Amino acid sequence: MSEPGIFEIIHSTRAMRRLKPDPIPEATLKKIVDAGIRAPSGGNVQDWAFVLVRDPELKRFLRDYYWNTWQTLRAQSSLSSTEGIPPAQIRMYNAASDLAAHLDEAPVILLACVQQEYSPVAPLNKRASKLAVYGSIFPAVQNILLSCRALGIGATLTTIHSFFEDTLKQRIGIPETMEVAAMIPMGYPQGKFGPVSRRPVEEVIHWDRWGNQQK
Amino acid sequence: MSEPGIFEIIHSTRAMRRLKPDPIPEATLKKIVDAGIRAPSGGNVQDWAFVLVRDPELKRFLRDYYWNTWQTLRAQSSLSSTEGIPPAQIRMYNAASDLAAHLDEAPVILLACVQQEYSPVAPLNKRASKLAVYGSIFPAVQNILLSCRALGIGATLTTIHSFFEDTLKQRIGIPETMEVAAMIPMGYPQGKFGPVSRRPVEEVIHWDRWGNQQK
Repeated sequence: MSEPGIFEIIHSTRAMRRLKPDPIPEATLKKIVDAGIRAPSGGNVQDWAFVLVRDPELKRFLRDYYWNTWQTLRAQSSLSSTEGIPPAQIRMYNAASDLAAHLDEAPVILLACVQQEYSPVAPLNKRASKLAVYGSIFPAVQNILLSCRALGIGATLTTIHSFFEDTLKQRIGIPETMEVAAMIPMGYPQGKFGPVSRRPVEEVIHWDRWGNQQK
Repeated sequence: MSEPGIFEIIHSTRAMRRLKPDPIPEATLKKIVDAGIRAPSGGNVQDWAFVLVRDPELKRFLRDYYWNTWQTLRAQSSLSSTEGIPPAQIRMYNAASDLAAHLDEAPVILLACVQQEYSPVAPLNKRASKLAVYGSIFPAVQNILLSCRALGIGATLTTIHSFFEDTLKQRIGIPETMEVAAMIPMGYPQGKFGPVSRRPVEEVIHWDRWGNQQK
């Protein structure tokens, strides 16, 4: 069987938040991470690491902290009431709540880690260093999301683990110098993949100068 | 013709730094950005924008600032001498120097912009906000790099524009609230696409806990 087309995959890679508990074969997981690390990194330093959490106790730990954080954020947010919120957004947040509540049922939770300081060439200022760091992990994360989709695995990019990152790093044994940039629950989806809808591309393209748009 | 396969593209998307000046059709540029915006963004806010710079004068402006920054960084760095540097790294930095010197010859320079502050749901702390911001633009950037490759266009993710970001934003008219996360010179490549080599995947995967590796 020939592999799925790149644009078909890009246009149907959406957050899949409701996952089946069925295990993902180890060879499949390796293929996904191996695609991840084809992404660029600043100066090609490849200062990344990927923790694949399958242990039930560790997944429950992640679930409990994630769920508490989610509850706290939700209570603080405009979403404590649904009044005036568009239906699509309410659906998204309900799915996100479900994900938080059932996080430990995902067969695998991937932690994408990156070296916090970047200076292979020269000392960088703070802003340049941030771009170098996050620009050296989120492209790999996107390769991982696309590869999951190509292999029929649902996944979602989440970042609210940052509220309990110190506890998380300690529990998993992640070195001080590494940052956990993303937490990605992975599993075969309960629902179906479908097209990803976005605002029209004409609204986000500016030709030469800001505001020079064809609409 | 069927479109190229996702894994074939992921495994052959490398930084292409030597580009031909031939123009890229507008429909092709739109297709590339349209693939970019299928990427996820925190809370699906889609707070991104893409400036496609084709104007010769603006490209020269970008080239001059980029070149000066590159020269300064290179002089400060260990690369001011090539002693003890692996040949592959020297080749990469030579290509990067060439890119800096000839940046204005690329038919298009794409600026990937993102809203600097993220708070659609609840006020976030500084660390969470950074992840939400960069995690909402670099996945789109990777979609763009993969789409370029799929369409035979060479591209490179660069970030050292951050050293002259204020000047850059002013010249292009980019609002104060937006950050330029990446600058991507794009053009048909002088060389050939080829496989991307990386450290073995076993070295970057940890099972459940840090250090638990199969090597």
